[in-house]
Amino acid sequence: MRILIVGAGGVGSAAARIAVRREFFDRLIIADYDPARPQALVDELGDARLVAAQVDASSADSVAALIAEHGATHVLNAVDPRFVMPIFDGCFAAGVVYLDMAMSLSRRHPDRPYELPGVKLGDEQFAKEQEWKDAGRLALVGIGVEPGLSDVFARYAEDELFSEIDELGVRDGANLVVAGYDFAPSFSIWTTIEECLNPPVVYERGRGWYTTAPFSEPEVFDFPEGIGPVECVNVEHEEVLLMPRWTGARRVTFKYGLGDEFIEVLKVLNKLGLDRTEKVTVKGVEVSPRDVVAACLPDPATIGDKMTGKTCAGVWVTGTGKDGQPRSTYLYHVVDNEDTMREYNSQAVVWQTAINPVIALELLATGVWSGAGVLGPEAFDARPFLDLLGGAYGSPWGIQERTPA
Amino acid sequence: MRILIVGAGGVGSAAARIAVRREFFDRLIIADYDPARPQALVDELGDARLVAAQVDASSADSVAALIAEHGATHVLNAVDPRFVMPIFDGCFAAGVVYLDMAMSLSRRHPDRPYELPGVKLGDEQFAKEQEWKDAGRLALVGIGVEPGLSDVFARYAEDELFSEIDELGVRDGANLVVAGYDFAPSFSIWTTIEECLNPPVVYERGRGWYTTAPFSEPEVFDFPEGIGPVECVNVEHEEVLLMPRWTGARRVTFKYGLGDEFIEVLKVLNKLGLDRTEKVTVKGVEVSPRDVVAACLPDPATIGDKMTGKTCAGVWVTGTGKDGQPRSTYLYHVVDNEDTMREYNSQAVVWQTAINPVIALELLATGVWSGAGVLGPEAFDARPFLDLLGGAYGSPWGIQERTPA
Repeated sequence: MRILIVGAGGVGSAAARIAVRREFFDRLIIADYDPARPQALVDELGDARLVAAQVDASSADSVAALIAEHGATHVLNAVDPRFVMPIFDGCFAAGVVYLDMAMSLSRRHPDRPYELPGVKLGDEQFAKEQEWKDAGRLALVGIGVEPGLSDVFARYAEDELFSEIDELGVRDGANLVVAGYDFAPSFSIWTTIEECLNPPVVYERGRGWYTTAPFSEPEVFDFPEGIGPVECVNVEHEEVLLMPRWTGARRVTFKYGLGDEFIEVLKVLNKLGLDRTEKVTVKGVEVSPRDVVAACLPDPATIGDKMTGKTCAGVWVTGTGKDGQPRSTYLYHVVDNEDTMREYNSQAVVWQTAINPVIALELLATGVWSGAGVLGPEAFDARPFLDLLGGAYGSPWGIQERTPA
Repeated sequence: MRILIVGAGGVGSAAARIAVRREFFDRLIIADYDPARPQALVDELGDARLVAAQVDASSADSVAALIAEHGATHVLNAVDPRFVMPIFDGCFAAGVVYLDMAMSLSRRHPDRPYELPGVKLGDEQFAKEQEWKDAGRLALVGIGVEPGLSDVFARYAEDELFSEIDELGVRDGANLVVAGYDFAPSFSIWTTIEECLNPPVVYERGRGWYTTAPFSEPEVFDFPEGIGPVECVNVEHEEVLLMPRWTGARRVTFKYGLGDEFIEVLKVLNKLGLDRTEKVTVKGVEVSPRDVVAACLPDPATIGDKMTGKTCAGVWVTGTGKDGQPRSTYLYHVVDNEDTMREYNSQAVVWQTAINPVIALELLATGVWSGAGVLGPEAFDARPFLDLLGGAYGSPWGIQERTPA
């Protein structure tokens, strides 16, 4: 296996740091628009299988040419979702396996954005599903942590724990704190605003996909391993688009544990128009208000060593167990920032995203996973994935039984 | 009398609209940094006594030169408080009467900002009191509505209603709503941020002035004439600095009926550093975050026709009445936006501010009020002011008796 990682940012770098500890691949090409970034990573890791390269991720031709140049067999897209389509198309043209951790972007419904989906997350990719299937090529989409590990948990729950699933409720929460700041998000505020102010999507069998207003259906979810209760709200996320394609769940939701404080901040930014990206004129200069908000906050890339706490990703599954009794189970994965900083020099949120595509690549390399078409993680057997995660990769996951309603 | 109004914003324009209905002056020069603004006002009002001019309010020399050019005798400062000192100094240099509606800015105590005052509101002006007195020149400071009418009420209460005052509690509240906006402050957000995030100041006889944390001592005050209960909190305001200089009240406070929503907005702006005035670099351009916030919101001067409701300014006086009995009295002035829009094309909050300096100018023109030094409204007889307000100016004020505690 010859892997190409497109993007040497936080997640791409963490994926390389995780991969070099494994034997399943022959070569790993790390490419970025800025060639200094992958080169720094190659220098840091000192593994003879690594090569740095330059790529323009906005060009399918540039991606296909790089694949050909290095004879890559598998491509992991680790850049932001604006570049999904050119990389996806470049991989198809080059005839290699494609993996990503976020899917093609949505566009809101022009008239009724808070009721109906417009273009949904992943729609542009699924529109090309038949081509990939006919060509016998594989695109494994949404294989980060969320989407990704959450979808693996959904598959596992349906196969091994439940006979009937009422709801697959992805629930994400953390107790990460950054010392020395009144307010310091642990990830890009620009992206958080984008994600959280888009209309959240919900799936219900019989009704299909529909949207709601931002921050809808607030719920306090009690996260395990000391994180505790966090206020969660509906947020637009890929799992809601993926899980209904391969599971029989009646309802699929994604709720993000933003917490009261963060929700209030986002609501105020929206209310005052400070979330806008279109420039405004301020005493003769033109600026985007959202860029000003970002400029006033510390850079999340620089705060990993000031951060403490844990982050939790998981799926709360409710329905009927294999024994015919009501069952309520939370399958989860918790990562402590102190551990990932010490062992991988990566902060918890990006590390937890990056480990999953590396495991998927290993399962593809060994032939345990295989397929053709545009497939989510639910389309594959969950057990070997979870065995590697908690076993050889040393990052345990958990199952928590809850009292059924 | 030849009046120069510096600033053709909301308050300056409303003052001109009110003044042109009166006969007490010979000429009214309206000046602004942007000469188009006063010219539009002169065109709108069609009064031969009016002249438009250009001025740089940040320069005492520019102000003094304009005074000399037009032979102004009285200057009303109607720009934001950052420009108090250059206009104040320019008036002293030119030998004319100075009036303002907000005083020189405070600076917080370097070590214990929420316990001790640093530089207080008006300190820079009062530092020059002796010069003004010696020169026989008058600076009438804080003669808007709050400070201003509130201070007149305090004078009136002490002279005519109370033998002993325990507390002069300024209480300001409104039920104004702006249609079509999620959030549209009815007053300058720049000034509101300045006022509300500075440490509030409180006066107690024996202890003197001290400060607290922002939003301290929340209290629901029931405002008259249908406005009803509003959550009020301590806010830094000039009355607390002015009233103890000319009255014998044991305690002086200012509480602003911000309401829950506005308090939350201000807290978030502060938490994110968006209240800061120092410039930040945003993708190569430099802007003050607070200016960006102001640029994202509708201009308060332009939303009057979309606004409905009333605003109330007043002083809650508690102590011993002239009859020796405990007394609790709220002296207040309520303005309905519908009335001020219809009759003056000015929204209620700026109109309520602007009417008071016009009345003061009339009292100075007619010789009913006179003095030398840096004087607050409390230093003058309240009765003729209140008679003009409710009488010739047609804007009634009220006295509400409350049950003493």
